[in-house]
Amino acid sequence: MKIVSIQLLNEEQPKYLQLFNSIKEQISQGEMKPGERLPAIRSLASQLGVNTSTVVNAYKQLESNSYITAKKGSGYFVSNTKTGKEDINFSSDLGLFKDTSVINFASATPHPSIFPIESFKACINEVLERDKGFAFGYDESNGYRPLRQSILDYFNREYSIFVENENYLQIVSGAQQGIDIIGKVLLNPGDYVVTETPTYDGAVAAFKSRGARIISVNMDKDGMDMEELEKKIRICKPKLIYVMSRYQNPTTVCYSEEKLKKLLLLAKENQLYIVEDDSMSELYFEKEKPMPLKALDIDNECVIYLKSFSKILMPGLRVGCMVIPNKLLSDFTKIKHTSDISSSGLIQRSLDLYFRSEKWEEHLQYMKEIYRGRFEVMLTALERLQKYGVKYEKPGGGLYFWVRLPRYLSAKLFYQKCKANGLVFIPSGIFYDNIHKNCDDYIRLSFASAGIDQISEGMAILEKCLQSKYQEE
Amino acid sequence: MKIVSIQLLNEEQPKYLQLFNSIKEQISQGEMKPGERLPAIRSLASQLGVNTSTVVNAYKQLESNSYITAKKGSGYFVSNTKTGKEDINFSSDLGLFKDTSVINFASATPHPSIFPIESFKACINEVLERDKGFAFGYDESNGYRPLRQSILDYFNREYSIFVENENYLQIVSGAQQGIDIIGKVLLNPGDYVVTETPTYDGAVAAFKSRGARIISVNMDKDGMDMEELEKKIRICKPKLIYVMSRYQNPTTVCYSEEKLKKLLLLAKENQLYIVEDDSMSELYFEKEKPMPLKALDIDNECVIYLKSFSKILMPGLRVGCMVIPNKLLSDFTKIKHTSDISSSGLIQRSLDLYFRSEKWEEHLQYMKEIYRGRFEVMLTALERLQKYGVKYEKPGGGLYFWVRLPRYLSAKLFYQKCKANGLVFIPSGIFYDNIHKNCDDYIRLSFASAGIDQISEGMAILEKCLQSKYQEE
Repeated sequence: MKIVSIQLLNEEQPKYLQLFNSIKEQISQGEMKPGERLPAIRSLASQLGVNTSTVVNAYKQLESNSYITAKKGSGYFVSNTKTGKEDINFSSDLGLFKDTSVINFASATPHPSIFPIESFKACINEVLERDKGFAFGYDESNGYRPLRQSILDYFNREYSIFVENENYLQIVSGAQQGIDIIGKVLLNPGDYVVTETPTYDGAVAAFKSRGARIISVNMDKDGMDMEELEKKIRICKPKLIYVMSRYQNPTTVCYSEEKLKKLLLLAKENQLYIVEDDSMSELYFEKEKPMPLKALDIDNECVIYLKSFSKILMPGLRVGCMVIPNKLLSDFTKIKHTSDISSSGLIQRSLDLYFRSEKWEEHLQYMKEIYRGRFEVMLTALERLQKYGVKYEKPGGGLYFWVRLPRYLSAKLFYQKCKANGLVFIPSGIFYDNIHKNCDDYIRLSFASAGIDQISEGMAILEKCLQSKYQEE
Repeated sequence: MKIVSIQLLNEEQPKYLQLFNSIKEQISQGEMKPGERLPAIRSLASQLGVNTSTVVNAYKQLESNSYITAKKGSGYFVSNTKTGKEDINFSSDLGLFKDTSVINFASATPHPSIFPIESFKACINEVLERDKGFAFGYDESNGYRPLRQSILDYFNREYSIFVENENYLQIVSGAQQGIDIIGKVLLNPGDYVVTETPTYDGAVAAFKSRGARIISVNMDKDGMDMEELEKKIRICKPKLIYVMSRYQNPTTVCYSEEKLKKLLLLAKENQLYIVEDDSMSELYFEKEKPMPLKALDIDNECVIYLKSFSKILMPGLRVGCMVIPNKLLSDFTKIKHTSDISSSGLIQRSLDLYFRSEKWEEHLQYMKEIYRGRFEVMLTALERLQKYGVKYEKPGGGLYFWVRLPRYLSAKLFYQKCKANGLVFIPSGIFYDNIHKNCDDYIRLSFASAGIDQISEGMAILEKCLQSKYQEE
């Protein structure tokens, strides 16, 4: 490391952050190589003339962003595993669709072959006929108004979410942008954000890109551990809690009503906001549809409800929607404008027509039937695998199973083995923030993208790989 | 102000930033009202137990974000003019399109009636026939590969921009998102960014949302004042320079070759990046097309070239493109992924077909003819107005005139007067960061959206309003 080049002269930035940034830069630019040892904390501190705690904080930040790795007793080293995580993640939704020789239990989005292309195409052409050039002008930053009205009707009817009018709805270019905008509006560098653990890594990445620090709270079978949450709120005073209250990704947990109420109470008492990320509550296999947390937030005070249509319609729409609490309204519109001015007018207008037609309800029923079939096939196969020590909770809906491997198996290594045999899924490490290094005992099996025959085939590969491991033991 | 509620306890954030945030919050939540006086610097500092410089820095930050206003000799007050700026800005591109009773010299984007809807519709339908559901799957985060190839061909051919291959191109959801992503990749809170002054306020807003501080450098007739730039680089060590090298918004200035070379040299010597924002270099009325700065950056080292198609095609596409310097490649893809995963696949694929057809060149010729006609009409009318003391430089291309009003006129007041008479444009204040309060002597007249008859009519209104002012003097 070129210590000589490190200067901590910016008076308006904490020193630890300046140190973090200059080491990060040396690693990114290849001036520090993977495996290289970082200077000892005490010696670096004295060379730079700062407290040891400044160096400790910078190293911790680097570690939690995977730039460096601590080795017990021997110090910190530049990571070489950093890209591993992203490799799996990226391939899951992209390249593997087209690689028909691999069975895909990794992807969380439906296969393009079941998208409602014909009816959506009709909507697009109707919009182009009707609105002509205006379909390609700028729309309002908070979204095409008739679409916001359609969505609000849907939220009212299906989820008992009531807000005064469509002004409280903000259209976004997909749920990921929603999370990014929430971070921009609410977070400053150094702020704390509570997430479930395990959780969706794309949300963690967006919060971290604002300089936020993540506090992970463990999941029970009916939602976050509320005692742990309460304690961590008291200590860290977070700004935000990020939850997926229904069919949580990846654990498939639904929150109990009791925990939802407790969550809301904690938010109110501590004046913090909850982001409720909902991508698949429509896909329930139980008799009763679970209600969102947002339905309890009757004064529209502290829950930002974020709705994605990627899993129930098509991911490539890049259109999602947020319900914004009263106090935050103008901030969100402004930040949306700075982010990308507005989301595609053509797609918003076409989606509006689609929602207003009967096609939407029909398609939803069709998706539910397809997914229920796949769910049953995967479930039946999983029951057979219990004899190898595999464990899981049967989910009430959603698109995944969260499967605990036998004690002697590493999810990461098992993933490599299955991949070599033509099956991919997501090993648990992806869903944990880096502090939790030992979470290598679960895999997420998704039935979003594979058809019924492929599911049977994939489960047979899984069994074969389990069997051989079982016999090795 | 509830000083009692202000706590500066976060050890990892500069105190001035904590103070900035808590006052900002009180203003946003209405606990401090417009016109309310802020505590005197010395007294607040002693009550909070901090240095006066901390309070000064917080107040400055509030002022530069328009939350408060300094009144000479009497202190700081909560602004009530804050929304003024945004009102004009928002209406320029949105509401006024539909208000046919107002002539629009404000909007910088073409009117929807001249969009190439029929040919683009054909491309959309061809893509849907060809790709079916895959048009709505996720595309690669850096963009649909064939589109990147088409665009790179175009950049090669038309602008002598050469990079190794299309991997160095990043598709974004419009140029505004490009600027936002650049900020996320390169800026930390407190970093300095150089911009031209006057400049595009959307860029300033995006940089500020990353906590950056803006350094403004004055524009000469052939580009930024290079002495001033050099001096400010030496003092502030900025990370980034943001320029519009051709038909700068709003001054219409084109950089001389000499200044382009100097700019590049300064960037190399000081290891900083230049963002070259190009939205209308195709629209030249001179014989020779001016070359972009990026063409000089032959090692693809320090210029991020950002291309928008909003002004030459349609703003609602929400698709733009960046050429990324070698060292920054992987960072950009990651940050794009966290921002919105990917841009609309359907639009990217349709745009690719459109570029590969002859329609694109045809449309470009058509747009140039239309704009040249409007340019001539506005120019002729402006020549007539010189007798009232109006001044301007004749631009070599682009979509605006940057017009200096007679000494005795305030652009803001003149705007109000013209608006009352049925004409809108943009007064100069919008293009200046708040530090420059006295820049109220120019107006930007755009011929992007108004037709030839409307331009004549609008210029007549302008003359009438000038005349009456002239007689009042």
